[in-house]
Amino acid sequence: MILHKKATLFIGLLIGFFAKAQTQDFTHYVNPFIGTSNFGATNPGAIAPRGMASVSPFNVAGRQNVLEKDSRWLSNPYVNENTFLTGFSHVNMSGVGCPDLGVILSIPTTGELQTDHLEYGTTYTNEVAKPGYYSVELDKYNVKTELTASTRVGVSRYSFPAGKANLLLNLGLGLTNEQGAVLKFNSPTEVEGYRMVGSFCYNNVESAYPIYFVARISETPANYGIWDKPAKYDGVEAQWMGYNGKTRLKEQFMREVVGDSIGAYFKYDFDKPTQVVMKIGISYVSVANARENLDEEVGDASFDAVYKQTKQAWNDKLSVVEVEGGSVDDKTIFYTGLYHTQIAPSILNDSNGEYPAMKTRAVKHTEGTRYTVFSLWDTYRNYHQLMSLLYPQEQLDMVNSMLDIYDQNAWLPKWELNATETFTMVGDPAAVVLADTYARGITDFDVDKAYKAMLKSADTREGNPLRPGLGEYIDNGYVSVDSDVAGPVSTTQEYNIADYAIAQLAEILGKKQDAKRFTKRALSYKKMYNKDSRFLQPKMSDGSWYEPFDPLAGANFTENPGFIEGNAWQYLFMQPHDIKGMIKLMSGEKKFEEKLDALFAEDQFDMANEPDISYPFLYNYLPGKSYKTREKVAELIDTYFTNKPAGLPGNDDTGTMSAWLVYAMMGFYPMTPGEATYTLSEPQFDTVRIHLNPDFYSNKTLTIKNQSTRNNYKTATFKVNGKALNNSQVMHKNWVEAGEIIFE
Amino acid sequence: MILHKKATLFIGLLIGFFAKAQTQDFTHYVNPFIGTSNFGATNPGAIAPRGMASVSPFNVAGRQNVLEKDSRWLSNPYVNENTFLTGFSHVNMSGVGCPDLGVILSIPTTGELQTDHLEYGTTYTNEVAKPGYYSVELDKYNVKTELTASTRVGVSRYSFPAGKANLLLNLGLGLTNEQGAVLKFNSPTEVEGYRMVGSFCYNNVESAYPIYFVARISETPANYGIWDKPAKYDGVEAQWMGYNGKTRLKEQFMREVVGDSIGAYFKYDFDKPTQVVMKIGISYVSVANARENLDEEVGDASFDAVYKQTKQAWNDKLSVVEVEGGSVDDKTIFYTGLYHTQIAPSILNDSNGEYPAMKTRAVKHTEGTRYTVFSLWDTYRNYHQLMSLLYPQEQLDMVNSMLDIYDQNAWLPKWELNATETFTMVGDPAAVVLADTYARGITDFDVDKAYKAMLKSADTREGNPLRPGLGEYIDNGYVSVDSDVAGPVSTTQEYNIADYAIAQLAEILGKKQDAKRFTKRALSYKKMYNKDSRFLQPKMSDGSWYEPFDPLAGANFTENPGFIEGNAWQYLFMQPHDIKGMIKLMSGEKKFEEKLDALFAEDQFDMANEPDISYPFLYNYLPGKSYKTREKVAELIDTYFTNKPAGLPGNDDTGTMSAWLVYAMMGFYPMTPGEATYTLSEPQFDTVRIHLNPDFYSNKTLTIKNQSTRNNYKTATFKVNGKALNNSQVMHKNWVEAGEIIFE
Repeated sequence: MILHKKATLFIGLLIGFFAKAQTQDFTHYVNPFIGTSNFGATNPGAIAPRGMASVSPFNVAGRQNVLEKDSRWLSNPYVNENTFLTGFSHVNMSGVGCPDLGVILSIPTTGELQTDHLEYGTTYTNEVAKPGYYSVELDKYNVKTELTASTRVGVSRYSFPAGKANLLLNLGLGLTNEQGAVLKFNSPTEVEGYRMVGSFCYNNVESAYPIYFVARISETPANYGIWDKPAKYDGVEAQWMGYNGKTRLKEQFMREVVGDSIGAYFKYDFDKPTQVVMKIGISYVSVANARENLDEEVGDASFDAVYKQTKQAWNDKLSVVEVEGGSVDDKTIFYTGLYHTQIAPSILNDSNGEYPAMKTRAVKHTEGTRYTVFSLWDTYRNYHQLMSLLYPQEQLDMVNSMLDIYDQNAWLPKWELNATETFTMVGDPAAVVLADTYARGITDFDVDKAYKAMLKSADTREGNPLRPGLGEYIDNGYVSVDSDVAGPVSTTQEYNIADYAIAQLAEILGKKQDAKRFTKRALSYKKMYNKDSRFLQPKMSDGSWYEPFDPLAGANFTENPGFIEGNAWQYLFMQPHDIKGMIKLMSGEKKFEEKLDALFAEDQFDMANEPDISYPFLYNYLPGKSYKTREKVAELIDTYFTNKPAGLPGNDDTGTMSAWLVYAMMGFYPMTPGEATYTLSEPQFDTVRIHLNPDFYSNKTLTIKNQSTRNNYKTATFKVNGKALNNSQVMHKNWVEAGEIIFE
Repeated sequence: MILHKKATLFIGLLIGFFAKAQTQDFTHYVNPFIGTSNFGATNPGAIAPRGMASVSPFNVAGRQNVLEKDSRWLSNPYVNENTFLTGFSHVNMSGVGCPDLGVILSIPTTGELQTDHLEYGTTYTNEVAKPGYYSVELDKYNVKTELTASTRVGVSRYSFPAGKANLLLNLGLGLTNEQGAVLKFNSPTEVEGYRMVGSFCYNNVESAYPIYFVARISETPANYGIWDKPAKYDGVEAQWMGYNGKTRLKEQFMREVVGDSIGAYFKYDFDKPTQVVMKIGISYVSVANARENLDEEVGDASFDAVYKQTKQAWNDKLSVVEVEGGSVDDKTIFYTGLYHTQIAPSILNDSNGEYPAMKTRAVKHTEGTRYTVFSLWDTYRNYHQLMSLLYPQEQLDMVNSMLDIYDQNAWLPKWELNATETFTMVGDPAAVVLADTYARGITDFDVDKAYKAMLKSADTREGNPLRPGLGEYIDNGYVSVDSDVAGPVSTTQEYNIADYAIAQLAEILGKKQDAKRFTKRALSYKKMYNKDSRFLQPKMSDGSWYEPFDPLAGANFTENPGFIEGNAWQYLFMQPHDIKGMIKLMSGEKKFEEKLDALFAEDQFDMANEPDISYPFLYNYLPGKSYKTREKVAELIDTYFTNKPAGLPGNDDTGTMSAWLVYAMMGFYPMTPGEATYTLSEPQFDTVRIHLNPDFYSNKTLTIKNQSTRNNYKTATFKVNGKALNNSQVMHKNWVEAGEIIFE
C-alpha cells in the first residue's frame, strides 16, 4: 500500500475535504460488504453498535447457492457470492467461525401464500449497505426491502406493489442446527414467540436456549395465521394420517403453536403500492422484555427515524478516530475495520437491565451493560487493547461482564456466547484481558476478584475447564501429546502468555511472590524448543519428542499432534512476552531474522488466523530492521485488506482482524498482551487523530502525523517534541499522553 | 338378569340396608375398572365430575403391552390387560373411539435418573380405583402412587422409600400423535408449560392446540432440570454433532425449553421414606389460568382433603338416583353407568370463566359452564334425554354451550372437542338435542337462535359441513352412493331423524309451515326401502339400486357403500320417529316382528354401536309383544354389562352406552329422539327413586317400584294410581309428575 500512496494522495485530499464539508459523516466510509466473502463471516445487515438485534439478508439456504448451510460448515447468514435469498434474519453473529443464531427470518412475497423457503426464495439485485441500513430488491416479487435496527429491535420496510402479497416470519429456517419454536398472535398486527438456538461450534447443546421476540407490523393484514410443518410420522398410524408430513395453516389461531418448522404469515391484497414496516423486539430473558425493548427503543417511531438515530450512533462511534490523507479505499477499509470492532462483544441485557445468568439463565439485573460474545482466544491479542484505547468505558463494562460470568459460572469466560460457555479453543485468555486492561489504567473494577479468578484457573490442577492439562504443565512446563489435551504445544504457549499476564498484574498489585512464580512459568515454552529442528515441537509426557515431527503438519487436514489451527511455523514465534529470550533461544538476532524471513518467504505466515498475526512486528526487535516491519505490515494490509467483499483475510474473529487493521493503519500495535505497551510501524494516513475519553485519559486528543518520504523511509521514526521513540516498545501511558506524535 | 334376580334379592336387601347405614355412600357402588377392557375405552383414573383434569394410569406404551398405542388404533390411556405402566397422564378422554389427549405424564422412579419411558416403565400391583381415587404399587420402584383430582387439578401422591429417587414429568410421551411442548421452571418446586394435542380421529390437524399446566411439588428436590431429546439430524453436519440423537439434561435451567420429547425431572435422596405430592393445574387458555385454577381449587390443600371433596362431589351426583334391591353387581353396574355419564361432556372453562373460542381459540368468558366433548352422533339418542331428567341444569348449560359453539363457528357442533370441531360421524345430531331438550321443558335458552341454527344446517344446500349431500337429499329424498358422501343410507336416515326433531320444535314454536315441511322430509327413508330385499338399500343418484347389495356389507372390513359403522341389518329399523310407518312399510306387524326376531337370531344386532341400540324396545309397538322387549333388554344387560373390566359392550361413547344401561335398568327409554316421550321395559331394581331438580320439576321425587312376579311377568305393566300406562309411549311430563309408578 505504501508504494502507491502518492498516486492517491491528491484524490484522498479532495475526498477528505468533501467529507469534512459533510460535517464528518464517517459512516460514508463504511462498506458492510467487506468480509462477506472469503469466509470473513461478516454480514451486510443493519445493526446498531453492539446491537442485540441485527437484520441480515439470509442467502445460505438452498442448493442454488455456492456456499450452502446444510451441505458444509458455514458460519454466516450471508455470502456475497450466493444468489438465492430466503429472508432476513433478526439475530446474527458477525465474523465467527461456527454457525449459530441466524434465526427469526422475515420475507415479503407476492401472489399466493407459499411457506417453503426453497419455493419462496428469490434472486435479488441492487443491494445497498451502510451502517444501520441495508436494502435490496427481490427479483421474484418486485419488492424493495429495507432494513434498519436499534440496539434490540430489528426494523424492516417492505415496498409492495399492488395486488396479493404476504409477509412471512419463519421460525423454522435458521443458520443454527438447533430447532424448536413457539409463536402466538396477540392481534392481527402483533405476534410473539421464541426460537431455540445454541450448540455453537456443534458443542455444549445442554445450554441451548430460547431467543424471545415480539413482532409488530404497521398495516392490518387481510388475513393471518401460523403455519406448522411437523416431522413426518413413520409409525403404523401413518396410514390414518392423511395429513402426514404436510404443512398446516392455522388461520387466525390465537394461542401458542409449538414446532420445529413453524412461521407466521400476514396476507394482504393491496389496491395500490404499499409499504409495510415490521418491528421485531428481541430479548434473551422473556417475551415481556422483548416487548419492553420494542416499546422503549422504537415504539411508534418511523423506519426513517430509527435509521437516523442508529446512523448517528454509528457516527459517534466512528468519529473517535479521524484520519486525513489516504485514498477513499484506505479510509473505507479503516472505518469498516473500526465498524467491525463495534459489533461484538454485543449487548446481552434488556433495556430494563435484565439478562440471563450463565447456565441456569435465571434472571439477573445489571445497572451497566452486560456484554456477550467473548471470543477471547482471538480478542485477547489486540482487540481489548484497542477498546481500552478508543472505548475505555466499553472495555470496563466488558471486564465487569467477565467478572459477572465468573460469579455465575465459577470460572472466567473462555468463549462465552449469550450466557453460555462454549469452551471453544485453548488457553486462558480472560486472564490476559483482565491484566492488560488494568495495566492500561482502566482499573475501576474489582481487581481482587479478578485476580482471585485468574489464580483459580492458573492453579487448579484437576477438573479445570479453562486449563486442561494444567498439572502436567505446572510439573513439567509443558502439556504432552499423550495428555489428550488438544494442541498441546499451542496450549502450553497460551498458558505461558496467560501466566505472563498474571505476573504483570501481580507485580502491579505488589504480589511479588506470585509475580516471580508466574514469570518463571511463562518461560516454559523453551522446553519444547528443539535446537536441531529449530521449532517448538510436541513432546511426550516422558520428555521425548513426539515422532515423526512435520513442521507443516495440520496443512491439508493432515494430523496435527502439536498445534491448534496452525502448524509449527505459525506457532514458532508466539512468545510476545519473551521476544528477547526467544531471539536468544533461536541462536541470536541473525538466525532469528533468517527464520522470520523464511516464514514469510515460504508462505507459512497465515494472515487469516490469530497465532501469528503479530509476527510482522517482530522485526522491530532486531536492530535496524524496523523498516522490515513497516514494509511487511503495509504489504499485508495491501494484500489482505481491500474494499471488496473478500477484503478480510478470513474470519473477522469478532473484530480481531479488524482491530489488527485499525492498529496497523494507525501505525502501532500492542505487541505483548498483558503489558501496556505498543510496538510501532507506520501510519497509513497523513494524520490520525484519536479523541480520547476524558473519563479515562487526561489528554483530550492524540494526533499522529506521517511526514515521512521515500527518502527517509528506512530510517524514519516516531518523534514526540522532536525526540525519537523506541520503535520496538513504547509505554501506552506515554503514547496516549504525547499529544502529537510525528512519524518522519 | 331377570332370571336370577330372586336369588340375589336377600343379599341385595342386606347391602341396601348397610349402604343406608353408611349415610348412603353411592361411590361405594362405582367400579372405575368397568370399561377398561373390551375397548370400553374408559380409564380407572381419578377425576372429579366432568373434570377438565383427570389422572389416569398410562399403560399403553411399550411392546410388552397386549394393546400398544403405536402399533394399532387405540383410543385410551389404559387397558386392563396391559401390564407395563409408563406414568400417569393428567388430561384424558373416556369412552371414545379415537386417540387424543393422554398427555402430561408423571412417574416416580428410584435410583439413577432415566428419562426414556421404555426404560423406566414398570409392572405394577394392587390397583385400587374409586370415584376420584386410584392407587397402585410400582413393582420396579416399590413406590405406592395415589391419584386424585379436583375439577381442573390433578393431584398425585408418591410414597418413596429411602434413597435416591426421581419424580418425572414427561411431555414427550402421550396417547395423541401430536407433538411439541414447552417447559419452564419457575422455582425448584414449580414448573409450567404446555403440550400440543389434537388431530382427534386423525383429523382436522389445523386445529391442534396447546394444553397449559402449572405443576407444583411438595418437597424441594436435591436437584432438578429439563431433559430434551431432539430428533436425530441426518444432514452432513451430523459428523460434527457428537450429541446427535442423544438426550440432553438441562440442569436447573430457568428459561423455556421447546421440544417434541422433553420432560422435567426432580431428583431426591431421601434419608427416610417420604411422600411427595404433585399438583398439576390445567387450562385450555393459558399458563396463568392453569396457575389460577391450581390456586383456586387446591392451593395448599392436602391430597386427602382434595380427595374428600371430590368424593363428596361424586356422591352428590350419584345420589340423584337411589335404587333398592338387586345384587351388589347390579348396583355396581348401575352406579358405574351413572358415573360414566358424568365424565363427558366435561368442563372447558377455567375457574375464572375463560375458555378458548372455536377455531381461533381467542379468549372468551362465560358466567355459566362451557361444556366440551360433544360426541353428538352417540349422545343425541339417549344421553341428553337422561341429562334432562337427572341433571337438567347441566343439560341446559350443554345446550347453551352448543349455541355458543354456533356463535363462534357459524355451525352447530357435530363432534366438538376442546373448542375444535372434528366433524366426525354423520348426520345433524345437534338439532335433535336442541329440540328434545326444549320439548322436555328445559327452555331457558335462546330458542330462536337455536331454531335459526337448526334451519341453517337443514336448509343450506351447498358447503354445508354438517349435512353434506343436502341438496340431493332435499330434491330426491336420499343421499346417493355417487354423491361421495360417506354412508349415504345412514346419512339419509340421520337427516330424517334430525328433520323430525326440527318438525317437533317447529310445532311447539307454532311454525306450522316448517313443521309440515320437515315432517314430510323426515319420511324420505322409505325411498331407500327395497320391498324385494326388505332392506334399506344404497341408491344411485339416477334412482337405481346400487349393485351388488349385500346386507352384511361392512362386516370383516368388506366395502360398505351404504352405511357408516354398521350394515343394512343394523340400520334397518333406525326410524325411531316413524315406527308405525316403518311397520307398515315392512308389510305389517307380523312381518316386522319376524324381521326383528331375525335380527337378533341371526346375530346381526350390535350392542356395541349406537344405530340399533333402541331396537329391543321396538317390540313394545307390536300388540302383546312388550314382554319381548323386557326379555331382550334384560338379556342384553345380563350379557353385555357386568362388574368386570370387560363390562361394557365396547366404547362407552362418552356415556351413551352407560345412559342406555341406566335407562334400561330403571325400566324406561327415550325411544324417539326429539320427542319428549319414553317407551317402557322393566325396572331391574325393586325400587328406583329419582330426586328431581326442583328448579326444573314440580315433583320432588319419582319413585318406580317393581312388584312383578314370575307369574304375571308376560302381562305386567306400569301403573300410576292403579291405572296402567301404555308401554309403547308415555309422555315425559306425565312420567316425571307421576310421583309413584308401580310395575306389576
